[in-house]
This record gives sequence, C-alpha cells and structure tokens, in this order.
Amino acid sequence: MEKTALIMAGGRGERFWPKSRKSLPKQFLSLTDDGKTMIQLTVERILPIVNIENIYIATNKDYLPLIKEQLPDLPEKNVICEPIGRNTAPCIAVSAAIISKKYDDALMMVLPSDHLIKYNNIYQQILSDACEVAEKDDNLVTVGITPDYPETGYGYIKFLNGETEGRAYKVEKFVEKPNLGLAKEYVASNEYLWNSGQFIWKVSTILNKLKEHMPETYEGALKIKDAYDTEKYDEVLNKVFPEFPSISIDYGIMEKSENIYVIPGTFGWDDVGSWLAVERIKKVNECGNIVDGNIVSINTKNCIIQGDKKLIATVGLEDLVIVDTEDATLICDKKSTADIKKILEELKGLNKNEYL
Amino acid sequence: MEKTALIMAGGRGERFWPKSRKSLPKQFLSLTDDGKTMIQLTVERILPIVNIENIYIATNKDYLPLIKEQLPDLPEKNVICEPIGRNTAPCIAVSAAIISKKYDDALMMVLPSDHLIKYNNIYQQILSDACEVAEKDDNLVTVGITPDYPETGYGYIKFLNGETEGRAYKVEKFVEKPNLGLAKEYVASNEYLWNSGQFIWKVSTILNKLKEHMPETYEGALKIKDAYDTEKYDEVLNKVFPEFPSISIDYGIMEKSENIYVIPGTFGWDDVGSWLAVERIKKVNECGNIVDGNIVSINTKNCIIQGDKKLIATVGLEDLVIVDTEDATLICDKKSTADIKKILEELKGLNKNEYL
Repeated sequence: MEKTALIMAGGRGERFWPKSRKSLPKQFLSLTDDGKTMIQLTVERILPIVNIENIYIATNKDYLPLIKEQLPDLPEKNVICEPIGRNTAPCIAVSAAIISKKYDDALMMVLPSDHLIKYNNIYQQILSDACEVAEKDDNLVTVGITPDYPETGYGYIKFLNGETEGRAYKVEKFVEKPNLGLAKEYVASNEYLWNSGQFIWKVSTILNKLKEHMPETYEGALKIKDAYDTEKYDEVLNKVFPEFPSISIDYGIMEKSENIYVIPGTFGWDDVGSWLAVERIKKVNECGNIVDGNIVSINTKNCIIQGDKKLIATVGLEDLVIVDTEDATLICDKKSTADIKKILEELKGLNKNEYL
Repeated sequence: MEKTALIMAGGRGERFWPKSRKSLPKQFLSLTDDGKTMIQLTVERILPIVNIENIYIATNKDYLPLIKEQLPDLPEKNVICEPIGRNTAPCIAVSAAIISKKYDDALMMVLPSDHLIKYNNIYQQILSDACEVAEKDDNLVTVGITPDYPETGYGYIKFLNGETEGRAYKVEKFVEKPNLGLAKEYVASNEYLWNSGQFIWKVSTILNKLKEHMPETYEGALKIKDAYDTEKYDEVLNKVFPEFPSISIDYGIMEKSENIYVIPGTFGWDDVGSWLAVERIKKVNECGNIVDGNIVSINTKNCIIQGDKKLIATVGLEDLVIVDTEDATLICDKKSTADIKKILEELKGLNKNEYL
C-alpha cells in the first residue's frame, strides 16, 4: 500500500523565544549544528520511505512562505493551510480526506515537525514496522519512546506485555503527564512508554473512526476534499475549517478506540522542549559552553550562548542561557527556562506584540 | 585673586565598557539619573565659584567634538588638545603656562572630569577654603576624602594632626594603594584620607615648582604659552607636547615638594570606578535592580541592567551587570567586574578594535 505522511507544523514553540516568534516558530528554526531547520530534518528523515509527492504539511496559512522557502521540492498543493488553529483532530481529518482523493486507500503517518531523531535508520525501520501493523485490520498505531528517566513533561502510554501484533504491543491506556512519583513508578514498571505524538494508520481506518466519533468534523472534511484541487478550495476551506471544534486526536479518537498498538522505539528521539535541549544536540566546548555567534567569554562555563553578528561579552557566568536576536536579548538562568513564557505573558500585557 | 580651573578629561575608563569606548570615554557618559554627562556635572558644580571663561579642559584632541557638543558655553580656546597622552604633569604645566598668559597670577584648581559629588554646596565651600590656603605662601593644596571603609583601590594621604593652615592639614606623605590589612590600619588611625586627585595652587606656585623639578617640561610649556592665541599655536603644541616625558604630577612634583596641605572633605565623593558604582548613584527598584531601557524581568534581583531600545528579557537572574549597546552586549557577574578589562585584552588580541 502507498505510504503517505502528514507533518503537523502549526505549532508555536514559545520556549525558544526570542529566536522563535509567532512569525517564526520552532519548526522553522535551525537548532542543530548542521544548519538545517527542524522541518527540513523531519522531511529528510522520511524521504527514504515516503515519496515527496506523498508528504503533506498542515500548518497555519501564515507559514506557507516559510515552507516554500525551506522545502522548495515539496508540491505547494501538499501544504494544507489552516485558516485558524483547531488542534490535531480537524487537521488530521482534512488531511486524510484530501489524501483519500488521490488514493483509494493509503498508509498515513502523522508526524510532528519539531522533534529531532538521532538514528534515522532505526527510525525508518520502526515506521516501516508500524506501517505493517497499521495495514492489518483497522489498527491505530503509535510510536512509543523507551523512557530514559522519569520525565514529568511527557504523556505516557501503558502497553500490554502479552498482546503483540507484529512488532507492536496492544495499548492499555494513554496517561497524562504524571508527577515525579508516578513517573518513577511508570519507568520502574517497564510497562510504560513516552507518548511521542506520532501515529500510523490507513486513511480508511482514521476516516471511519472520525465518521464514528466526530461525524460533523468528518462531514466537513469531506466537503473540503470535494473542493480540493478545484478553484473553490480556498473558499470552502476558509468557510468550513473555522467551524470545526478544537479537539486533539488523542481526546477525539484515540481514547475512544480499540485496536491501538504501540511500537517501542529507541532512536535518539528528542522533543527539543526548551533551550536546555540544545545541550543534548549541539557541540559543547572545553568550558562546557555551547556558543554560536560573535562571542568573547572570560571565566564563563556551562552556558548556552546563541547570538549572531553582535558582540556578546560574558564575564564570570555559569549556567545561563543567553540568546540574542535582532530586536531582543534573553538572559535566563538554566533553572528558570520554564519561566520564559512569563516574559511572553508580560509582553502581551504591555501590548508589545512586536516581540511575540 | 582670580579663580581658574583645569579639568582633566583625557582618560579612557575601560571599566564602563561597552558603554565607554576609546571614542567615548567615561567622562562623556551619563551615569546618573539626571541624564547629564560626568564632564557636564563637573563644570556645573564649579560654576558658582569659577567663571566659565576661566575653566580650561585638557583632553585628547579626538574628544574636542564631544566637548563642544556637551559644553557649548565653554570657549573653544579653553580646550587644550593634547596630541598624545603624557600623564598629568605636562598637561598641568601647559595649562598653567597658558593661564599665566591671561593673568599675572591666579588660583588654579586641577580637577578630574569623571568623579561624582553629591553635596555640591559643601564641595564648593571646601574648594573656597582650599583657595584660601593656596593663596597664602607657596602652598600646594589637595583635597582628601574622609574614608568610609578600608578601600584598597585608592591611594591615601597621611596628614599631621597638629599642623594646620586655615582648614587644611600639613601632608606627611602620599601612599600608594594599600592591601586590605594596611587599609584597615589607615582607616583606624584617623590620620589618613583618600587621595581624590584634586589640587589647588597658584599658577605662579606650580610654575615655580615645575621650573625647579621638571625644567625641560617647564621650558616646553613656556614655548606653547608663547604660541597660544597665535596662528602658530597648533604647530608648536603638536611639536612640543609629544616630547614631554610621561610623568604624573604626584611623582614629578608633589613627592618632591614641601608645603603640601590637605583639606579633608565629606561631600559624597564617588570616583565611579566600575559598573558597581551605579548602585550608589542610580535609583534602585523594588527588586533591587537598576534598570534603564526596554527591560522585562521575571524573578530578577539585584541586577544592573542598562539598555536602550532593544528589548532585554531577564529570567531568574541575580547579581549580574547587563549592558547593551548598539554593537555589543556585556553580561558580567557583579563579583567579576574587575575582569571586564580582560574582555578588552581579548578583543585587542582578536584584532576586533572596532569594539574598543
């Protein structure tokens, strides 16, 4: 069966402010030493298993120019421009419907656009394995990450050790982000995986599920499908899409479904959740600093310093994140990166929207 | 006797980098909340006792445009432009000689351009008292600051409690910057004052001293005096000045002289020696921060943040100095401000002279 992919690229990623902005969210930034952006890397790593003609990107319409610039080989009609964000369920419904106009049926991988993966070969193998499980019956397959430590920032997936389907395990339940005590129990139990937000299913399977559990969204998606590739497409999309409820696929479909399988993977996955993640993915110098730009440092260690042309001089610093952009400079203690969003709230309150 | 003043404004002030630069040293910066520059404040505080026509400024020729801009009322011919720095003795010799072309004799106050004084009335009284002592005999008078604590960054003046002349005490000796133990002894003894680098004498007195102890410099100064106010002035100045030895007035004259008196003063003197001094002179907000510019802060305390239009966002910081300028940003731990000069050395080594 033909393989297709939907890359979801509508997110904001406030945690990389001030480099990420409303107008330039995380998936369009380069955070690795190779200079490639997150979405470029996402496309690149699935190209060995999915033809570029079969890769779809759902995003906010404002980002179309960025996508055309960063992914010039991707057909423009494969970019599904959401007039307004409606969470993942409507986005997946419309994309699945549009793909069903091209293929009677096809495999569909739903992937985030702003995660990193270190071992691409292993990852491609996992996706292929997932496709095998998804092709059989009406299985919904997700990719679970073998946890390294009791992370409290991710959701977890509990699987049933005894019930397998190919290389996948039957999912018992999805659980929300736990507190530290619970997270420790999950990791110790060997029955939980991290939820990486990646799904694999047949287009027919997910459309049937939508028809069953979210019939109005399903009907709306069919209207958009009918208009797709005609001159009415923009008009219909802009009319129908905003009427969708804002619901996640986890809540709208996964929690209500049987036949969910998880493929466990260990392929150097990183959701690059904050500036601290840069320590895991960029080269560290002999003082423990990660520096980019025009930097001069005296007695400075274990800092992340990301600048550009402007000179940044640091003296006697430790454990700071310093990010300089054209119009804003962030200086943040490493322990406080979760509070960067408070800066954005403050800026909103001050009506300084030009910095968001 | 007519009162004149020489303000010495040739210094660099590396410790206020990146705001201070070779092209804009500390005396031309505003470091107070009133927006006035250090040299503007220096002139302003002596105007009640010295006519502007009698205020002379010695500086590097490159700073003439800054002086004309910041002190438009000062006669341009009162600015003595040194073609090259030669420490304080030659600068004072030339200025005294030039003043002696205008007045047979006059009182001459020699003052730094980059110190702050809080209580101007008290200060003016001290200068007037010093003039009285200087007018009598051939006294050399200096202003000593009553020490608040055992500072190791200043020179000290030991005075003789018994020998007074008007409100001044006879100086026993000048001593170099002490170590902490010595500084504590000095302060405990009640016989030492801080050396503030301010001198008051008659023009005739200092010229006689120069003739005695630095005869070549004296002769050179007379040549410049002869050319002053004629078309040959620039030519003579540029020829004679670079030939002067580079010697301080302390070493060249004071240490070799008798009849030195010190007037003790307590008038809120501050030599504004580093960014930390800003804490003593600017308004501190409720979090202990001193902020100027476009700043948004979360959980930030006891920081000095000096910016301009560019947004500076700080999160979870304590005890840092952050200074943002057009082309360079400094982030420095308060304990490490003495190391800012290492940044300048590094920049020199990297041949990045545009930042010096």
